[in-house]
Amino acid sequence: MTRNELVEAIRSKKTFLCVGLDPDPQKIPESIRKLDNPLFEFNKRIIDATKDYCVAYKPNTAFYESQGAKGWEALKKTRSYIGDSHFTIADAKRGDIGNTSSMYAKAFFEDLNYDSVTVAPYMGSDSVQPFLAHDNRWVILLALTSNRGADDFQFFSAKDGERLFEKVLKTSQKWGSNENMMYVVGATRPEKLKEIRALAPNYFLLVPGVGAQGGDLKAVCEYGMNHDVGLLINSSRGIIHASSEDDFDMAAREAAKRIAQQMNEILS
Amino acid sequence: MTRNELVEAIRSKKTFLCVGLDPDPQKIPESIRKLDNPLFEFNKRIIDATKDYCVAYKPNTAFYESQGAKGWEALKKTRSYIGDSHFTIADAKRGDIGNTSSMYAKAFFEDLNYDSVTVAPYMGSDSVQPFLAHDNRWVILLALTSNRGADDFQFFSAKDGERLFEKVLKTSQKWGSNENMMYVVGATRPEKLKEIRALAPNYFLLVPGVGAQGGDLKAVCEYGMNHDVGLLINSSRGIIHASSEDDFDMAAREAAKRIAQQMNEILS
Repeated sequence: MTRNELVEAIRSKKTFLCVGLDPDPQKIPESIRKLDNPLFEFNKRIIDATKDYCVAYKPNTAFYESQGAKGWEALKKTRSYIGDSHFTIADAKRGDIGNTSSMYAKAFFEDLNYDSVTVAPYMGSDSVQPFLAHDNRWVILLALTSNRGADDFQFFSAKDGERLFEKVLKTSQKWGSNENMMYVVGATRPEKLKEIRALAPNYFLLVPGVGAQGGDLKAVCEYGMNHDVGLLINSSRGIIHASSEDDFDMAAREAAKRIAQQMNEILS
Repeated sequence: MTRNELVEAIRSKKTFLCVGLDPDPQKIPESIRKLDNPLFEFNKRIIDATKDYCVAYKPNTAFYESQGAKGWEALKKTRSYIGDSHFTIADAKRGDIGNTSSMYAKAFFEDLNYDSVTVAPYMGSDSVQPFLAHDNRWVILLALTSNRGADDFQFFSAKDGERLFEKVLKTSQKWGSNENMMYVVGATRPEKLKEIRALAPNYFLLVPGVGAQGGDLKAVCEYGMNHDVGLLINSSRGIIHASSEDDFDMAAREAAKRIAQQMNEILS
């Protein structure tokens, strides 16, 4: 999906919600757990229930890898099931030396066919560029994450006061453009979004941490929105595990709808 | 495998070679490519041929993920085939928020049963600690990598001259010990090993980059060895793809033997 197509989807659906498909096996209802591929069956019902209220889906690969080869199959089947109506994010936080990142790009863009993959910046340019070499695919680079551990290194600051996350934002813009790169910025630090917007005014930001992690939607929009909206706000547990009973899909639909309505108001 | 067991294996076999199991599908001979699970069949022959000359095996997950669910199966079968005689490293460079890192730990330590996993430090303490919560398993944290992109952020330096890789080395020692944590330090920067040894004298270092990436074994040992040897030196392409013909296993054996002989001399 191109940047224009994504902006168009957001404008027409009046939502910039991304649903995080991170199914915790313990919270999947018994009736689904009995099926041949529970992760995929769970996702199918979640996608059917939420697709009107979101523009993107983001499976986190950890939840699939913990289920072995069957989980990896679910990651692929889930991508196919979503189709081309939504932006797809493989939340994988990969990154390795060049020939290895090329293999990851092959895995996520060619074999699994995701629009985008999240990448960790620690290993620098040649760990990121192999992903950017694929036409019409995106890198979503970690800048400032939502967890408390972000304080350990992301705020590490240089002589001139520049902090690591700022350095990542500045340096990486030499590698890609706002047509093939986005940044991860946690919703738990909305006040930082203002500083990040100053450094990357035209980039989309993927913002996790609304919901279970405590981030505030309005504050994120106030500081983070740009003229193209420029935000994909992710909620995972708060939507997909709103209920752990057989009505989980309808509960997910209601949870997604509530957020989408808030987004609609903000956009109006 | 515990630290003592690893040191004992190194002392008795007089080698500290780690063979990187990163099979490039293009370089696997036709006779193997025809089989049901080529990556696993290739690895079996490599393991049989090299096991006397190494103490560790390190599959890089990218090469398996690029082959889909079948690749993931190969990662698991390869681990079983290695058995408990060698230290096993899932070179996955993972790292995510706490509940997600827990899922990765489950995938690599419980489902796949690897002794260790490589982890990227960018997201800080709570992205690393879930791996350390598993008894008798190891985190191998990226400190200073072998690629040129390492210059982009790993040398980012603070007011007092401290660089990011040093900050990572210092901070992370509060999370684990030399019984459950190692560091990745690229062989392409042997002179830096001296500085790293000053900061982490008793930790094992996993050193990639000898061979195809140009690192020099003697220089690495001169600067990086400690009283317990403290080094696992990895070679991947230089061993497993020494030949792309049907004699690949014997060529791998010769390549591994040559490095092991150099190591034997250094240890004597």
